[in-house]
Amino acid sequence: MDEPTTRAERYARGRTVLDAIDGTAGANVIEALDDISPELGHQVVAWGFGEVYSRPGLSPRDRQLVTLGMLTALGGCEPQLEVHINAALNVGLTSQEITEAFLHAAVYCGFPRALNATFTAKKVFAERGLLPVA
Amino acid sequence: MDEPTTRAERYARGRTVLDAIDGTAGANVIEALDDISPELGHQVVAWGFGEVYSRPGLSPRDRQLVTLGMLTALGGCEPQLEVHINAALNVGLTSQEITEAFLHAAVYCGFPRALNATFTAKKVFAERGLLPVA
Amino acid sequence: MDEPTTRAERYARGRTVLDAIDGTAGANVIEALDDISPELGHQVVAWGFGEVYSRPGLSPRDRQLVTLGMLTALGGCEPQLEVHINAALNVGLTSQEITEAFLHAAVYCGFPRALNATFTAKKVFAERGLLPVA
Amino acid sequence: MDEPTTRAERYARGRTVLDAIDGTAGANVIEALDDISPELGHQVVAWGFGEVYSRPGLSPRDRQLVTLGMLTALGGCEPQLEVHINAALNVGLTSQEITEAFLHAAVYCGFPRALNATFTAKKVFAERGLLPVA
Amino acid sequence: MDEPTTRAERYARGRTVLDAIDGTAGANVIEALDDISPELGHQVVAWGFGEVYSRPGLSPRDRQLVTLGMLTALGGCEPQLEVHINAALNVGLTSQEITEAFLHAAVYCGFPRALNATFTAKKVFAERGLLPVA
Amino acid sequence: MDEPTTRAERYARGRTVLDAIDGTAGANVIEALDDISPELGHQVVAWGFGEVYSRPGLSPRDRQLVTLGMLTALGGCEPQLEVHINAALNVGLTSQEITEAFLHAAVYCGFPRALNATFTAKKVFAERGLLPVA
Repeated sequence: MDEPTTRAERYARGRTVLDAIDGTAGANVIEALDDISPELGHQVVAWGFGEVYSRPGLSPRDRQLVTLGMLTALGGCEPQLEVHINAALNVGLTSQEITEAFLHAAVYCGFPRALNATFTAKKVFAERGLLPVA
Repeated sequence: MDEPTTRAERYARGRTVLDAIDGTAGANVIEALDDISPELGHQVVAWGFGEVYSRPGLSPRDRQLVTLGMLTALGGCEPQLEVHINAALNVGLTSQEITEAFLHAAVYCGFPRALNATFTAKKVFAERGLLPVA
Repeated sequence: MDEPTTRAERYARGRTVLDAIDGTAGANVIEALDDISPELGHQVVAWGFGEVYSRPGLSPRDRQLVTLGMLTALGGCEPQLEVHINAALNVGLTSQEITEAFLHAAVYCGFPRALNATFTAKKVFAERGLLPVA
Repeated sequence: MDEPTTRAERYARGRTVLDAIDGTAGANVIEALDDISPELGHQVVAWGFGEVYSRPGLSPRDRQLVTLGMLTALGGCEPQLEVHINAALNVGLTSQEITEAFLHAAVYCGFPRALNATFTAKKVFAERGLLPVA
Repeated sequence: MDEPTTRAERYARGRTVLDAIDGTAGANVIEALDDISPELGHQVVAWGFGEVYSRPGLSPRDRQLVTLGMLTALGGCEPQLEVHINAALNVGLTSQEITEAFLHAAVYCGFPRALNATFTAKKVFAERGLLPVA
Repeated sequence: MDEPTTRAERYARGRTVLDAIDGTAGANVIEALDDISPELGHQVVAWGFGEVYSRPGLSPRDRQLVTLGMLTALGGCEPQLEVHINAALNVGLTSQEITEAFLHAAVYCGFPRALNATFTAKKVFAERGLLPVA
């Protein structure tokens, strides 16, 4: 874990994790940063995914549960919720579990945050042919 | 207060309160949940309105004042603010009182939150023919 | 309303409103600012109370309902909640109405915010001999 | 699911779930509400635990992951974090997974929220003899 | 500092500061308030800019750095961020410094808030012909 | 910038920056993480300070202005505010500028957040013999 790495190698490691979890939705965010803040794009990939997501201490599915909870609670993060609802499906959460997580969120964040997250899920599920959620 | 009730009866009780306060705006939210999270729709109605709103300890007008304060402070709740600005008008708050409440909000939440709430009110008031606010 | 006023006169006007609503709790906050940011103390009084609270468009009781909603939703404002729960009692809200407002808050902010506000009320009510809330 | 139930039965159902997940920490919160807002205590139990937590669609362990994410993101919820870090341990999350979840939180909420949550965990783990986290 | 001033004079003083810092973007916000809450428009100008911004204790450039930090952290303030990214450019911050400030924000607020602010900057910079940020 | 570095080297680079800006207050936070989440301590240092703070695009003084704005707006970050008010003094902001920044914060975040930050500054200034702020 303490072998020397270059900045490019750290990016490459994170990019592999990003692509596996977020798919094209994550890649699109990074690309959109190219002309405004490529360093932010680098750090999302090299640090967020390369240093944190890649750690073995919590499974990808567990990480998305925590992430969905945070993004719902923060509010105003609908673009990020959209990416991570897709990510949650990619790592094995079902559409039923995701909507259940947002119902659960009502207990801790109240209905407005829970509703905003649920309607973001509705948009993602519609795109992926997952409606209605049985 | 402790008579046995069915889940359907608790929904019906809440639905009566929801319809009286939020009108069609509330009903539209519940309907939009049908194919994604009917349980969330059920709980908004049966719990939020049936168990909490229906309690006699605070008048409907008072509840909307508290609610407008919360939604303004939370931020990112413009869809819910829109529903509850309508609700506030439905239960007797005037357009002048609502804009005054959002001016008051600037003291506690700062101008950005107060402005976002006020511009949401502008949209609702325009739809209901209440502009200009004298 | 457009007569010339001095800064001192604007402070005095706000101070009258502050004292009437917040009592010694408000005065203590202003005094505590004397050696660190007297200008912030001035603006809380001259602007917050002199320019906003003093307006006739919303009753003092209504303003406290909005304020309790905002402070609950913001979180981390327990010192201000303590001042304004006192203020709410001073302008005619009952202890029952205040606890009902915080129960109502659970619907929009979730239980943690509602609990923090309720336990702050418990502290204030105990100091004022208002427990138990029947 | 639609059999008639009394208010007391709904409380009892939630209380069983609360006791299983939160243990005495949850019970202490409910008891502390007795003289200030017994209705809030009732609703935490009967609705939060009886209606939401008790649903089969998400495991208790999964619910705590979402909850830890939300409480970290909300900020100012250290008392509730303390209860739910205990709950997380009770339902099978390890101390390593909990601290990993809070490291993960830094990506989405920044370091201050992650640090506050981690130091709350340190307090809970110390009480339960779980330090150092290996 | 304690000469008598009229309400109109206090507005005029603030308006000069607002126009110098925010330009037409600020003026448009005030104008949009005319038919819904002219008092809020008055207070943004007369108090926010006339009483606070006009104070000599912090330079306009420093004030925008603080402001960009706050608006990023608050979330859901994209319209205000847009105005203040323009203001930041007007008072001498470069596009490189602004994007660096939003990268810095990731450390304290997490990536979602940093991304939302950065993409708002992208919109403003595109309108002002400042892309790509080198 | 793309030379290979080890994890220990990246920590060392960040530690130099951390020590220069935050002094012992920062070091104490990292040390307190040793038995609960050494990885979080590593990332605060190696990433927050080594990768972000160390970048030349924004001066240390500018970074603290943004940081004070964010921590004030987030709320519930008094421990971090305490560290960064110290840091702000360390990198050249005066006590007058810091209190002015918190007055400015009232415009965007409201008085409660501004008051909490100001009273945190009062504590720090008292420890450093900087009261009263003239």
